[in-house]
Amino acid sequence: MLIHIRHWVIGPPLPTRELEGQSLSKLRALAAFSPDALSSIAYANQEIYLALVLAGSAGLNLTLPVGLAITSLLVLVAISYLQTVHAYPSGGGSYAVTRANLGELPGLLAAAALLIDYLLTAAVSLTAAVAAIASAFPVLWPYRVTVALLFLFIITIANLRGAKESGTVMAVPVYLFIGSYLGMLGYGLIRLLFMPGETPPIAPPQAVAPLTTALILRAFAAGCTALTGVEAISNGVPAFVPPKSRNAAQTLLAMALLMGLLFAGSIALTQAFSVVSGPEETILSALARRIVGSGVVHWFIQIATMLILAVAANTSFAGFPRLAAVLAEDGFVPQQFRQLGDRLVYANAIVALSLAAALLIVAFGGDTHALIPLFAVGVFMAFTLSQTGMVLHWWHERGANWWLKAVLNGMGAAATAVTLVVVGMSKFREGAWITILLIPLMVIAFRGIRRHYAAVRAQLAVTDGAMPSTTNARPRVVIPVSGAHRSALEAVAYARSISDDVTAVYVEIEPDSADRVRKAWQLICPEVPLVAVPSPYRSLLGPLFAYLDELDRCCDDSQLATVILPEVVPARWWQAVLHNHASLAIRRALVYRRRTLGFQRTIIEVPYHLDR
Amino acid sequence: MLIHIRHWVIGPPLPTRELEGQSLSKLRALAAFSPDALSSIAYANQEIYLALVLAGSAGLNLTLPVGLAITSLLVLVAISYLQTVHAYPSGGGSYAVTRANLGELPGLLAAAALLIDYLLTAAVSLTAAVAAIASAFPVLWPYRVTVALLFLFIITIANLRGAKESGTVMAVPVYLFIGSYLGMLGYGLIRLLFMPGETPPIAPPQAVAPLTTALILRAFAAGCTALTGVEAISNGVPAFVPPKSRNAAQTLLAMALLMGLLFAGSIALTQAFSVVSGPEETILSALARRIVGSGVVHWFIQIATMLILAVAANTSFAGFPRLAAVLAEDGFVPQQFRQLGDRLVYANAIVALSLAAALLIVAFGGDTHALIPLFAVGVFMAFTLSQTGMVLHWWHERGANWWLKAVLNGMGAAATAVTLVVVGMSKFREGAWITILLIPLMVIAFRGIRRHYAAVRAQLAVTDGAMPSTTNARPRVVIPVSGAHRSALEAVAYARSISDDVTAVYVEIEPDSADRVRKAWQLICPEVPLVAVPSPYRSLLGPLFAYLDELDRCCDDSQLATVILPEVVPARWWQAVLHNHASLAIRRALVYRRRTLGFQRTIIEVPYHLDR
Repeated sequence: MLIHIRHWVIGPPLPTRELEGQSLSKLRALAAFSPDALSSIAYANQEIYLALVLAGSAGLNLTLPVGLAITSLLVLVAISYLQTVHAYPSGGGSYAVTRANLGELPGLLAAAALLIDYLLTAAVSLTAAVAAIASAFPVLWPYRVTVALLFLFIITIANLRGAKESGTVMAVPVYLFIGSYLGMLGYGLIRLLFMPGETPPIAPPQAVAPLTTALILRAFAAGCTALTGVEAISNGVPAFVPPKSRNAAQTLLAMALLMGLLFAGSIALTQAFSVVSGPEETILSALARRIVGSGVVHWFIQIATMLILAVAANTSFAGFPRLAAVLAEDGFVPQQFRQLGDRLVYANAIVALSLAAALLIVAFGGDTHALIPLFAVGVFMAFTLSQTGMVLHWWHERGANWWLKAVLNGMGAAATAVTLVVVGMSKFREGAWITILLIPLMVIAFRGIRRHYAAVRAQLAVTDGAMPSTTNARPRVVIPVSGAHRSALEAVAYARSISDDVTAVYVEIEPDSADRVRKAWQLICPEVPLVAVPSPYRSLLGPLFAYLDELDRCCDDSQLATVILPEVVPARWWQAVLHNHASLAIRRALVYRRRTLGFQRTIIEVPYHLDR
Repeated sequence: MLIHIRHWVIGPPLPTRELEGQSLSKLRALAAFSPDALSSIAYANQEIYLALVLAGSAGLNLTLPVGLAITSLLVLVAISYLQTVHAYPSGGGSYAVTRANLGELPGLLAAAALLIDYLLTAAVSLTAAVAAIASAFPVLWPYRVTVALLFLFIITIANLRGAKESGTVMAVPVYLFIGSYLGMLGYGLIRLLFMPGETPPIAPPQAVAPLTTALILRAFAAGCTALTGVEAISNGVPAFVPPKSRNAAQTLLAMALLMGLLFAGSIALTQAFSVVSGPEETILSALARRIVGSGVVHWFIQIATMLILAVAANTSFAGFPRLAAVLAEDGFVPQQFRQLGDRLVYANAIVALSLAAALLIVAFGGDTHALIPLFAVGVFMAFTLSQTGMVLHWWHERGANWWLKAVLNGMGAAATAVTLVVVGMSKFREGAWITILLIPLMVIAFRGIRRHYAAVRAQLAVTDGAMPSTTNARPRVVIPVSGAHRSALEAVAYARSISDDVTAVYVEIEPDSADRVRKAWQLICPEVPLVAVPSPYRSLLGPLFAYLDELDRCCDDSQLATVILPEVVPARWWQAVLHNHASLAIRRALVYRRRTLGFQRTIIEVPYHLDR
């Protein structure tokens, strides 16, 4: 029954041979790779506003300069990644580039930063999506966490079904967003130029903090989240139609242009119209409301914003599992992340990402602003490492104009490194410390995991003469029984077919029950002796293991020490709650108990199926 | 390590022989059995107020009449239970009395009502305790759910440690509460009589609903929760020092008097002072503030109220597990509820009650008012059934004055039955429907569970000649392997010691890996054939079971079909997350899969312990 539900929700399994690449045209590739980058203006603008509004209208007057500084940074980063696209036509993810050029440790740093980055992209995009839609429909504000989790659930299910179905559907929100925003900005510009004299209808907010350099730096640091997602195309070069690098480069250029236009344009108009927003509205929603007024058009813009943010969260569900699978291939994360599921997706990684994102959303109360300080550190660490790697790449390769290319990437690396320091310091106490702490811990975990796998491989490897010797001795069998039942008899029958040395043992949890059980046993199974073990503390495992240890200490054919567990299996799975699973507890203790006597015991389960 | 933590939190295990009764003096018995009854005035007053305030001051003028009606009901119920105390000196819980006199089905109805009642006592008392303390310290209001869960956690741990330690400690809050409330009421009376002319300082609230009969009935129904806990002493007669019945009866009388005094007194003063309360304060807190003013004395009263409510919640943790154990003894609930834990408490029932109460508190947002409609139905159903049972008890016994006793219990039964109908109807839509639906469902479950246990017993019973025959055939063994590892070799060695018919099987999840594995296997274990099974959908279990079924179909010595699972056991428990537990999945599928071919397979696990 569970399998049927699963098939209905996730879809039937797909055979492995359907695993093939798809090639994307430039228009479809732009839709596939840009949502994260484009949608990040939604929260970046909001963060700049929230930082500067503390200094009142004097602060808000700096919106455009801060925005332009970030746009210049965007230009540098975009140029850097243009070079990566050409240098790594097989996909130049930050982990691959950093590991290849700087070595394993920086590579792992980049990997940790990227995993955190993917996770926060999902969490931040979802909460920002909810903020966008709740700005149009304020009735949703109190339910922000619930709505965000609902979106997350839908995206998780869609990804467990497999990305292919979702590919084309994604293009719609992206172009909807681009179209509606360009339209809105254009209309706003026209109003600004040709309908002057409109005074700002809202009083400028009161300053609650002085306009210090620290405040401006914080606004800059928070706004830098606008750059998240720029690197997406450089990871995905192999997905383009040939000529891959060239098409990817052109798409990257188009994306960067659109990003810059939307970001700088909305920032400029926000300042020009002196837009401010209340606590239950995003600044972009307030801008849209200012330009097009409240009503259906405003709703449409907010819905488009929500959709592209949801799609952006979805891109994490493509990137995270792919990176986790690469790391699992290299042995740095649990092997389960390598397993392709029924639907040819890395289901374990998708579920892990979804759970972690849900945890973040709940822990931070669905508040984008609270999550942002954790976000930018990972992004800019990956940028810096990847660009530094590119500098070394050109240095090693020394092709035509290698020094020019190295200088361009070096400028990118320097700019992102400076930003990393600014972000890390100005947002440290607000949450950046979590990321700064987490990244080295993850690197330590990565290395520990690889050491563990290496140790396991070494221990499981078959060396010469390692074949365990086969003895002619038959196993020495102990059967824990809870009474003179049919299931115990089945176990005895199996035991006698493999051994002549069989003992049944009864742990006397209920006081004074041993005599009764011994008599009943004598009647039905006189050929196997029953040993009763007292249990003054009503514990099952303690006395049983004391008895087993004592028994094994006397004998030397210890290799064949065997415990047979009679297992009563209920007819229906839900009846399991009515049984006490003593045999399961014994089994687990037998398997996981360290071999104190230099050997382990073999466990035999003889199931006895009930019919009703 | 887990065991050490457990011992530190819960305490070391206690031997079974320490399980003895303790005898309580009347003063200690009053403290032990009355908290639920006494503390219920805290929420009952609040409910009456919340119901009547809807009709403004006209409604609030009816506070005293409603309170007096409930007090009369209390007198009837107390007299009824006085008779129970004498008739059932061995403890006359509603389940026992009802089952003995009315039969099994009404007994189970009473049991279901009581279980729900215990659960709601815990949830309601805890939320009311938080409301009491938050009335004095309003900073706690937003964290009501968290604080209630914290209290619940502390009570759960205390009960898992064992009730004995907590016995004496409990008496303090009870007498603190009684003393502080009697003092407050007395001081209030003095102020009322000797300092007249004080006008109510607060404007009477506006009516938002007309003063209808339905509204008055709702106030009465909600206020009837004041009666919860009256029956506690009748359950606990054996705990008294001899003469048990007499001491219990006197204690019951004292408790009923105190209940009536505190309830009617606080109701009367509330109306006399025209006290009203805001949304973030209980009416009792407002009354106390009116009498003693804000400050330390008010804090003291609220803390005493909180403490007795917490102790009242604690009584559920004594009653619920005891009733569940009795029901488990009779086979109506899972057997796990019979198991005395390490500390001689029914740990499973304590944990189950705690989880259910936590769920209720979270689901209803920690709001007492939202929980109350679910509450009274169970209480009054148990009252009615128990008192009706008492009528039949006197009828069957026909001792001296039997008809007088029967009439007294009959009046109790009639009054509580009428109240049950009033409560059920007037609170139906607000939540009583949940309880009304749940009780019959629980009875159905009780009977289903007993049927299941009877069926299991019948199936496990050993009938003549049922002893399975022992064959001389050796088991036919299949070993699923994931590669040519040492752990697989250990499994092969064991297999060869019990059988000559051994096959290894490799499921080819990774495409084109079979040849490589087959070659490696040939090198290290040429004497056992390796079969490779393709798996186009990357599933492990599907192809494996198809192979096993095919194999078993050919053979007729099916009784000894055996699967040996090589089990790699990591050196540390947390390393388990790095392994994919394929053998666990195979084991579970083997055990729970219904025997499609008329027999089951035996499972052998050969653990291979890693050292690091």
